[in-house]
Amino acid sequence: MEFKRLTPYKDALSMVINDIQEVGEEKIKLEDAAGRVLAEDIVASFDLPPFDRSAVDGYAIRAEDTFQAREYSPIELEVIEEVPAGASPSMEITPGKAIKVLTGAKIPKGANAVIMQEMVKRENNKIYVLRPVAPGQNIAFAGEDVKKGEIVLKKGSILRAQDLAMLKALGIRKVSVKKRPRVGIIITGSELVDEPDEEAFRSGKIVETNSIMLINLVERYFGEPIFYGVTPDEEEEIREKIERAKEECDLVLVTGGSAFGDKDYAHKFVNLLFHGTTIKPGRPIGYGERVFIMSGYPVAVFVQFHLFVKHALAKMVGAKNYEIKVKAIIEEDVPSQLGRYEFIKVYYEEGRAKVVKKKGSGIISSLVRSNGYLTIPEDSEGHRRGEEVWITLY
Amino acid sequence: MEFKRLTPYKDALSMVINDIQEVGEEKIKLEDAAGRVLAEDIVASFDLPPFDRSAVDGYAIRAEDTFQAREYSPIELEVIEEVPAGASPSMEITPGKAIKVLTGAKIPKGANAVIMQEMVKRENNKIYVLRPVAPGQNIAFAGEDVKKGEIVLKKGSILRAQDLAMLKALGIRKVSVKKRPRVGIIITGSELVDEPDEEAFRSGKIVETNSIMLINLVERYFGEPIFYGVTPDEEEEIREKIERAKEECDLVLVTGGSAFGDKDYAHKFVNLLFHGTTIKPGRPIGYGERVFIMSGYPVAVFVQFHLFVKHALAKMVGAKNYEIKVKAIIEEDVPSQLGRYEFIKVYYEEGRAKVVKKKGSGIISSLVRSNGYLTIPEDSEGHRRGEEVWITLY
Repeated sequence: MEFKRLTPYKDALSMVINDIQEVGEEKIKLEDAAGRVLAEDIVASFDLPPFDRSAVDGYAIRAEDTFQAREYSPIELEVIEEVPAGASPSMEITPGKAIKVLTGAKIPKGANAVIMQEMVKRENNKIYVLRPVAPGQNIAFAGEDVKKGEIVLKKGSILRAQDLAMLKALGIRKVSVKKRPRVGIIITGSELVDEPDEEAFRSGKIVETNSIMLINLVERYFGEPIFYGVTPDEEEEIREKIERAKEECDLVLVTGGSAFGDKDYAHKFVNLLFHGTTIKPGRPIGYGERVFIMSGYPVAVFVQFHLFVKHALAKMVGAKNYEIKVKAIIEEDVPSQLGRYEFIKVYYEEGRAKVVKKKGSGIISSLVRSNGYLTIPEDSEGHRRGEEVWITLY
Repeated sequence: MEFKRLTPYKDALSMVINDIQEVGEEKIKLEDAAGRVLAEDIVASFDLPPFDRSAVDGYAIRAEDTFQAREYSPIELEVIEEVPAGASPSMEITPGKAIKVLTGAKIPKGANAVIMQEMVKRENNKIYVLRPVAPGQNIAFAGEDVKKGEIVLKKGSILRAQDLAMLKALGIRKVSVKKRPRVGIIITGSELVDEPDEEAFRSGKIVETNSIMLINLVERYFGEPIFYGVTPDEEEEIREKIERAKEECDLVLVTGGSAFGDKDYAHKFVNLLFHGTTIKPGRPIGYGERVFIMSGYPVAVFVQFHLFVKHALAKMVGAKNYEIKVKAIIEEDVPSQLGRYEFIKVYYEEGRAKVVKKKGSGIISSLVRSNGYLTIPEDSEGHRRGEEVWITLY
């Protein structure tokens, strides 16, 4: 038995995305929020900086007082206060007066500029200004970073170090993020063993590698992996595990059993929206009822993850910009079969992409030696060497 | 007082890199190794696959037996064994015989091809072959993925999901990786508070944001952050903390105190190899004795991290390819001052880069709205709109 019909990739992906529901949200501490996805727009509840502050160590003054200053005829100003670090000025600037401030200090009333301390001569409580100072100089004005009411971070942002700094600056200590979707991972196959010992070699077993790969991919793309172990090709056991994982998880990944071999049970236990697509490699994939029935081959699993599961997880958490796409010159011809949506592994470096040549779903080394992929849709015959292509990095 | 001399960026970076020592290594479980840096080349101790195996569910045969097969004159072969999943064939193929195998099964002796089960007619213990089969067809040959003795992953690789799958396939359960460098983080400044409450506003305090930013950046670039808290501008306290952190850590980051203000103590306690560089923003940075004395401004700290600390951490763990560089068309003119090594924040999307305009070291929103940077060396006056530039993503 073969696939009666291969669903075109984009159609299959749409069926998945339309079926997938977003997960709920939770409020967590900023310290734990790196890499999480914002569940709400963040609006500034006050200006940043909250008041005009000095950008340098120096003297707060009225710029007008310095307009006549020249090297040969300095202007003298009286220093009426010295504000220590972390304190505020208590005096007000009037004509002819100056207040010493440190970087970050509040600008005293009446001042409209700060002159750097390196630019003046100080003698006792006098400073001598040699050049005119422009109004606003060395002042960080209230709201110049962020205005009250401004949206600083949008729902769907993946939080990075600098975003967390911004949230902290705005007085936010807990933030609403999307929950990590619980992703059940079920590996099937009687031929699978955990270690490649002599016995395994003699009896023709295969070392199971999909679990560690999927656990790490799921973690990287917003999910919490829950591993249900390796199941031999026993119809009842597979059925039970899928049922249990569906109850306990938001999404379930089953590897093995997606084709039509005598022992390919998994696809029988789920009402699939599609089964078999035009992607190459990785054609035998099915999806339905929040369950992906995936191939048993590591390379096919990896491709199916990037072409389907990654996008499903991003939809579940509402993540934006979760892929890095770069332009590259392709270094050789990439012919492609019409009717196939091809996933071509490449090694990208500084604007150039080399095709990683070894083919075959079992060739893990091709994944190790690549760092991204390009795709060629069903209606394209591929690319010529030297053409510019889009690479998605992984 | 001002910097007497600004060390050119590349010279300053070389001083750091030459001074920094690599950290030691440790053996950890594969399950914990994602994102860690390999401390040794990984050599395959056996072929992958370890034996010739079937790539499909089908019948192992001698290709020669099928060369005369035609639709109108099928060849009949006798099925002498059916190998269950996870088992090995016990019989040998002789002329006119076939053995049923599942995907992944060992190829029986005497066979040199596998014909997919969908391509034959089965009747009792006979199969009928309608078309010739080429030698080698549907066989994954021993060593076709990895040959015994081949280096599959090099020292310095940052381990990803697929790399862990490869290690597991090779029977490796623990792997030597570089230790995570311990990075002490000391924040100085009497003006710093943890929350922006009314009292803080009134007294002109600043919310401290460097710690959460540096903790996350250090974690992202191979390090284990150790936070020594916020220290007011008290000479003795700063000196003690730096001493303690130097003893307990592999690298120390101190923010604040890198310029020459009255309260800038930190730089006095370290024999600096340089102090003040041509970078903009972020000029007041010093390094010596495994200590970076950094600016107090969040944006300057962020820039100093990317231009110096990131590379120091990568050197400590021997990491290769830790930056993603992409080509982009710059969407506006980027003038640059001669003599400055400028760090220009950009928003990169699909081959185009927009300059994120707000300037000033205090402008955290410019970090939030950017996802990468370009640099302009001291001897360049910048770029014209439409030019192709290299962006480093962050």
